[in-house]
Amino acid sequence: MRQSLALSLSVSQHQDTRRAPAPFVREIPNGYRDWQWVSSAHEAGDLNSLGAVLGNDIAIKAYREGKLPFPDGSIIAALHYRNVPSDENNKVFGKVQSFVPGAPTNIQFMVKDSTKYAATGGWGFGHFQEGKPADAAFMKPCFPCHEKAKATDLVFTRYAP
Amino acid sequence: MRQSLALSLSVSQHQDTRRAPAPFVREIPNGYRDWQWVSSAHEAGDLNSLGAVLGNDIAIKAYREGKLPFPDGSIIAALHYRNVPSDENNKVFGKVQSFVPGAPTNIQFMVKDSTKYAATGGWGFGHFQEGKPADAAFMKPCFPCHEKAKATDLVFTRYAP
Repeated sequence: MRQSLALSLSVSQHQDTRRAPAPFVREIPNGYRDWQWVSSAHEAGDLNSLGAVLGNDIAIKAYREGKLPFPDGSIIAALHYRNVPSDENNKVFGKVQSFVPGAPTNIQFMVKDSTKYAATGGWGFGHFQEGKPADAAFMKPCFPCHEKAKATDLVFTRYAP
Repeated sequence: MRQSLALSLSVSQHQDTRRAPAPFVREIPNGYRDWQWVSSAHEAGDLNSLGAVLGNDIAIKAYREGKLPFPDGSIIAALHYRNVPSDENNKVFGKVQSFVPGAPTNIQFMVKDSTKYAATGGWGFGHFQEGKPADAAFMKPCFPCHEKAKATDLVFTRYAP
């Protein structure tokens, strides 16, 4: 009986380890809309998004000082919107020239905590649509893709001067 | 003699009035790079720019409260850069998809002071390249163009939620 319980525990622990997804960010960090601007980006193609990357004080300081890796406590937010033509601007310009953020699509976060997120390079990744976090399966590709930006501590976005 | 002096004064005053350009913003407002993000914009065509609009505390508060006209003290900054493909991002994506700010091109400001800038709708316009203000001739079209956005107090850029 004791042996059987031990076996059962061992199996379930093994399964937990194998299946447990790396932790990701499940709550939207407070006050992110007040953070300072890092840069803007336009993703063409299927994404067709226009947005901005903002950073909390710790992240902005690290960016400005060129400090890598980003220290624990750094949070970087990417605010994404549909990339849409601005009818009112284009009327003034007399041509289709001006593209602006349309409906919000998602907000993504990178939260630096080298202990909590050790399994994903010290960064916790988060993706929110209409305030709700994506599930573990959706979050799985974040780290392997960001790992390609190892030279800049997994962060793609550069600080715009 | 007195008559002739009066005439001469009157003529020179008339000329001053006719020629005097409306005042515009000749100094870069302090600390603008720390201001909060209003929105991003991509201008295609000849401009081919990508950038962001930031606002000082007074402007951001007015934006968020939907308060029009903007109160005196509001300053809105438009930071413009060349719109360039990000080679490092595109390598990861495996296609040309990602456009980011390249070299800075200019910074523009709108400073609300309904007394000082009464002649241009209460807004002082500013345009800086490499830290230097544009001349009066360059600044002349700012107001007539922005006047087309009368419904939003001459401000084209909307606040991105």
